[in-house]
Amino acid sequence: MVIIKVFVIGAHGQIGQRLIHLLAQQGHQVLAGVRNPDQITETEDGKITPVNFNLEDLPENLAPQLKGSDAIIFTAGSGGKTGADMTMLIDLDGAVKSMQAAELAGVKRFVIVSALYTGDRSKWIKSMRPYYAAKFYADEWLLHQTDLDYTIVRPGTLTNDEGTGKVDVQETEDVPGSISRDDVATVISEVITSSHASHKVFNVISGEKLIKKAINDL
Amino acid sequence: MVIIKVFVIGAHGQIGQRLIHLLAQQGHQVLAGVRNPDQITETEDGKITPVNFNLEDLPENLAPQLKGSDAIIFTAGSGGKTGADMTMLIDLDGAVKSMQAAELAGVKRFVIVSALYTGDRSKWIKSMRPYYAAKFYADEWLLHQTDLDYTIVRPGTLTNDEGTGKVDVQETEDVPGSISRDDVATVISEVITSSHASHKVFNVISGEKLIKKAINDL
Repeated sequence: MVIIKVFVIGAHGQIGQRLIHLLAQQGHQVLAGVRNPDQITETEDGKITPVNFNLEDLPENLAPQLKGSDAIIFTAGSGGKTGADMTMLIDLDGAVKSMQAAELAGVKRFVIVSALYTGDRSKWIKSMRPYYAAKFYADEWLLHQTDLDYTIVRPGTLTNDEGTGKVDVQETEDVPGSISRDDVATVISEVITSSHASHKVFNVISGEKLIKKAINDL
Repeated sequence: MVIIKVFVIGAHGQIGQRLIHLLAQQGHQVLAGVRNPDQITETEDGKITPVNFNLEDLPENLAPQLKGSDAIIFTAGSGGKTGADMTMLIDLDGAVKSMQAAELAGVKRFVIVSALYTGDRSKWIKSMRPYYAAKFYADEWLLHQTDLDYTIVRPGTLTNDEGTGKVDVQETEDVPGSISRDDVATVISEVITSSHASHKVFNVISGEKLIKKAINDL
């Protein structure tokens, strides 16, 4: 297995925390991007290093932190407790600034955690429309306004259930479903080292296929 | 002077109301797009016709209303009284849905009222960042994700002063300044029939040059 240096933006989030520990277990070198570095403890084996990364900064100020990474994972989100103003500034503009910073830093591989239905306005639940809109425009920027080697991962409804290690992946159909944050983290850990995931947009929900196989079948 | 059929999205807004009457005076046929057609009174001379146009609808439902227009002007905004959720859904997604509807309807000419500094994140005033972000992503979509014949008009701070008929137009520099809504309406009325404004992005503030000349010098 290839060992790489991965920068995780939103490392203190619910998926982010699972992800950085999983990546470290797999032997990767993890740069844990957080607004406040005190949020993350440096691990004794040196696999996880907290890095100050404030999504309200400008791309040119974010780029130096990303320089030298092999891949970037954007899993930051303003969360349900803040207003739509932060959804706009973090989930949309923060994501795009991260892409611009990646390009400035010369990092090509960029994985973003999006959401099921983001690509189809007719399926946006009314109360969550600002969130979907933010995700939509971030994904569209990654697809059409960058030369990054992207993967857009669109999980179904997120749960805190224990991971099953098995999923259903769809590139064209929007099949409703849920998935645990554990499994989303595992999916992303497979995606970052799989050439099959390159330049792909896919939905993922809990299912019957082993995650490694599901990603290799993309 | 060429007489055209103009669809104004946001006809009940502060710029929109000035604009539809100005366009009607100039002899144009005005379709006044509003969420609630009761907001606009059909004029006796038949120059202004209210048309139901709800920016929360999908592009395929908005396209029929636009069909047959020669030009579209987007001057809708959720306004300062609503939250950032409506900024996302009207100023950003509503604008993009209007562009997609224009393309579906086969209308090529699309003029959007943006704001000074929208193109430069470092100049976004902190309290207005969600608004600037919404305008930024709408403008970027128009520039890079459509084949529309666009003009992006970026006025300075808007006032309710009486129009002077004179402005300063800048395509490259961000000169700070204010401009009356009267003058913005006049600028747009020139822009829609001037070939010089085609495929242009410009800032406009109050100044010394006659509006017609300023637009013809673009």
